[in-house]
Amino acid sequence: MLGLMQDRPLLISSFLTHAALYHGDREIVSRTIEGPIHRTNYREVERRARKLANALAGLGATFGDRIGTLAWNGYRHLEIWYGTSGSGLVCHTINPRLFPEQISYIVNHAEDRVLFVDLTFVPLVEKFADKLTAVRHFVIMTDRAHMPETTIPNALCYEEIVEAASEDYAWPQFDENTASSLCYTSGTTGNPKGVLYSHRSTTIHSLSANSADAFCLSSRDVVLPIVPMFHANAWSLPYGVSMVGAKMVFPGAKLDGPSVHELLEGEGVTFTAAVPTVWLMLLQHLEATGGAITTLKRVVIGGSAAPASMIETFEKKYGATVIHAWGMTEMSPIGTLGALKAGMDSLPYEQQLAYKAKQGRAVYGVEIKITDDDGNELPRDGKAFGHLMVRGPWIAKAYLKNEGGNILDKDGWFDTGDVATLDPEGYMQITDRAKDVIKSGGEWISSIDLENAAVGHPAVAEAAVIGIVHPKWDERPLLIVVKKPGAEVTKDELLKFLEGKVAKWWLPDDVAFVPELPHTATGKLLKTKLREDFKSWRLPTADAAE
Amino acid sequence: MLGLMQDRPLLISSFLTHAALYHGDREIVSRTIEGPIHRTNYREVERRARKLANALAGLGATFGDRIGTLAWNGYRHLEIWYGTSGSGLVCHTINPRLFPEQISYIVNHAEDRVLFVDLTFVPLVEKFADKLTAVRHFVIMTDRAHMPETTIPNALCYEEIVEAASEDYAWPQFDENTASSLCYTSGTTGNPKGVLYSHRSTTIHSLSANSADAFCLSSRDVVLPIVPMFHANAWSLPYGVSMVGAKMVFPGAKLDGPSVHELLEGEGVTFTAAVPTVWLMLLQHLEATGGAITTLKRVVIGGSAAPASMIETFEKKYGATVIHAWGMTEMSPIGTLGALKAGMDSLPYEQQLAYKAKQGRAVYGVEIKITDDDGNELPRDGKAFGHLMVRGPWIAKAYLKNEGGNILDKDGWFDTGDVATLDPEGYMQITDRAKDVIKSGGEWISSIDLENAAVGHPAVAEAAVIGIVHPKWDERPLLIVVKKPGAEVTKDELLKFLEGKVAKWWLPDDVAFVPELPHTATGKLLKTKLREDFKSWRLPTADAAE
Repeated sequence: MLGLMQDRPLLISSFLTHAALYHGDREIVSRTIEGPIHRTNYREVERRARKLANALAGLGATFGDRIGTLAWNGYRHLEIWYGTSGSGLVCHTINPRLFPEQISYIVNHAEDRVLFVDLTFVPLVEKFADKLTAVRHFVIMTDRAHMPETTIPNALCYEEIVEAASEDYAWPQFDENTASSLCYTSGTTGNPKGVLYSHRSTTIHSLSANSADAFCLSSRDVVLPIVPMFHANAWSLPYGVSMVGAKMVFPGAKLDGPSVHELLEGEGVTFTAAVPTVWLMLLQHLEATGGAITTLKRVVIGGSAAPASMIETFEKKYGATVIHAWGMTEMSPIGTLGALKAGMDSLPYEQQLAYKAKQGRAVYGVEIKITDDDGNELPRDGKAFGHLMVRGPWIAKAYLKNEGGNILDKDGWFDTGDVATLDPEGYMQITDRAKDVIKSGGEWISSIDLENAAVGHPAVAEAAVIGIVHPKWDERPLLIVVKKPGAEVTKDELLKFLEGKVAKWWLPDDVAFVPELPHTATGKLLKTKLREDFKSWRLPTADAAE
Repeated sequence: MLGLMQDRPLLISSFLTHAALYHGDREIVSRTIEGPIHRTNYREVERRARKLANALAGLGATFGDRIGTLAWNGYRHLEIWYGTSGSGLVCHTINPRLFPEQISYIVNHAEDRVLFVDLTFVPLVEKFADKLTAVRHFVIMTDRAHMPETTIPNALCYEEIVEAASEDYAWPQFDENTASSLCYTSGTTGNPKGVLYSHRSTTIHSLSANSADAFCLSSRDVVLPIVPMFHANAWSLPYGVSMVGAKMVFPGAKLDGPSVHELLEGEGVTFTAAVPTVWLMLLQHLEATGGAITTLKRVVIGGSAAPASMIETFEKKYGATVIHAWGMTEMSPIGTLGALKAGMDSLPYEQQLAYKAKQGRAVYGVEIKITDDDGNELPRDGKAFGHLMVRGPWIAKAYLKNEGGNILDKDGWFDTGDVATLDPEGYMQITDRAKDVIKSGGEWISSIDLENAAVGHPAVAEAAVIGIVHPKWDERPLLIVVKKPGAEVTKDELLKFLEGKVAKWWLPDDVAFVPELPHTATGKLLKTKLREDFKSWRLPTADAAE
């Protein structure tokens, strides 16, 4: 027996039409690539998104075509998000920080028909424009006055095509499972793989992300999404903020401390979100200048783990509550968020901080569990750590063109590749990547915990821990260290320093000193390369065991 | 091109399993029909809901069967909600305030297989138990010690069937469009009609209702749903509160001022919701006793329009923000909610109050518009009033068994039967029921506005306004008045009193005095009866016009 409710599809265009109707005057503020601050509002963005939808149809884009963007957070990028997805095209946001050969691979793999390019990235695209086999039009996201000299063939001017297009356009209704947007994950191995979101998944995800124990976004908020729109949907903010009609502030290309601080204070920002690196720059700037934060209430930290000291500084010194977040491109991206539960507000701050330094609880709509290598569920005791498995309506079931094959287990769970603990209150903490865990005598050692402990030593600039084959224990940890310029430290001093900070049997069997560590284009440690470089490393304990 | 997100259905069981896993210890407090306050938690409710699902299967209920409830708000009713919907049965909540013949009609029309009955309603059910053709089992919602002597055939004891059932039960996965619950609307004409909700509509509705500009429910809230669970899903609270894991407090049968006040203060309630009548009783009690409200932050007023004075009293005297709500059984029920928009907080309070006294803005997910008799959309200028039309994924497309035939227009809009204005900020105000509007010379006169003005006279106990046929104007208003005991007022005095309070051409052409006005079982004015009684009334102005 089916219910008798209206068969209205959940469509992304409805976020913007709702905002334009009920919050038409609410501002969208952007720091432009051209320089000045630009101000528009939801009514105008919705009108121009309609014009853009007509313009794209005029360029030959048809339902389901992928439309690429290489762009910072700004109002034109927002217009493209809605103009494409809203009209049934697929908005493909591309990370410009990838290597050029990765970007051209992605554009070709997605078969992007049109590529929108911010001024910043014109020189980048010039390097491979002739290799983009499916792209029929390049659009530079600026006005005629700022159009650059470029070797990109037949480059169009964004403002000209929008200006020329009719605003007479009705947002179409279609199946909510239609693809809306596309984002590639850049793993540490193999080619990037495309995650294809739908209108349905995006809508449900945004509703849940907006809820009171998550982002708690209201029309009265002023939101600064610093996390890039090319990075996992900017954690759903451009969608969710539109849905509630909050004021939105876009930082453009300037993510440095002074620029971010200027926007926070100048625009009365109440809510913002970024990776720890951005917050480090802001906090250093505030420290150096004695600057204050006056309107900010909530700050989301995600992308990588937020140090407890950073959380404490925001909360104690600047009066902004930290929401620690974890997610993945494959998860739209939100998985867990660190809101405190009832009664925790009255715990001593140190205990609150211990919860906040974890990655948070699963939001409604996401199921999570941890399992051992055989797929058995492990206890939620805060101690056991295992493969972090996730399931839910905004989590990928496959990659574009089925790259990588089947990615779900028989019960529909997706293996995040992370290793984590779950505590009795439901808070999750990532302890490692599964492939980086050191398997010693049937037990797991977290490489990340060891690295975090090692970088606490004043002479250590950066540290990596990998497993080295061991005749008795299968694997034992090797600590690889980059020393700070001019600093000196010995193997024995480092091992002594680690004693008491980690379990005794976790202590590395050896330490190697190197001038630098290998990284991916987006700054992740490239442990595959390290394992290759150190594959014939002989641990001193190996001799003793044989 | 379809997205590649997991095909996980949106199911009601997930609200409760999420609560049990992440907020297992969070309390569910109930004032029982038996007398004492009862305390349980989400873990226990989820466990007992599983037992109940097994018990119902044991009683022969199969997927899609309707299971009726005649019950107050309490933990057993909550267990029934989840035990039925969660297992693929349809939870049919029945309004015990209807006439007995309406209730037996509804139970037979829905073909309820099992009927759960609170102790209060055992005498009611005894009146028609033998007429309930489809019901195979009656279950009295109490324990063995409190089982009453009853003529209800083979009455089962709730605690006994739950106790006897196994808790070994896995919540099944099925199509999210499956019917989850059923509620009949009692109009003023014809038989009640069944609105059949789905798991999908209920989930999306709850997510939107929980959002920051709506109820803004968090795990840290303590929620007292006074609006009955038999009345339009208790405005989604038992669902939404579970979803976030807030503490839930159920008032049972006692909705009087002292009982409600005791729960508010005793349980630390932060959020509550009820119709104006309940709030009137509470405010009178507080006034009489000098009682205080200390923990309450938000109070939802819906069901009928909240007087501005009531809103002001809650906000100014008791420090609780009022959320004025409007909806319908056909809308799950939430349509509009009165949260202030950005910047309105700094308006003078009188202006804030003017917005708050309207019924609010459409929540995300609900489309609303007003139209004239020909279906043309009317301006959102706060003045034009027209048929209020709604559309969205949690709004009915038909009634059970297609009673009443097609209820949507060609574009999918549902006519609410209300007449309303929409102002430029998006706030909606109901001005009348469409069938009660007086159509005078092609213009509309609001019967409700006239009635509200008339009851302002100190001698008027109750007033009704209906249209009377007029040879020149088609219709002109007749004011029908019940005087307060011992009070006297004349027609001329009343008309003089109304002058300046309504437009001059709205002034009634005549006044009739009656000892009492007819009402429906749920207390609505029965204007069909009035129109019948006064159909041959001759207006004095009619003679002059001929």
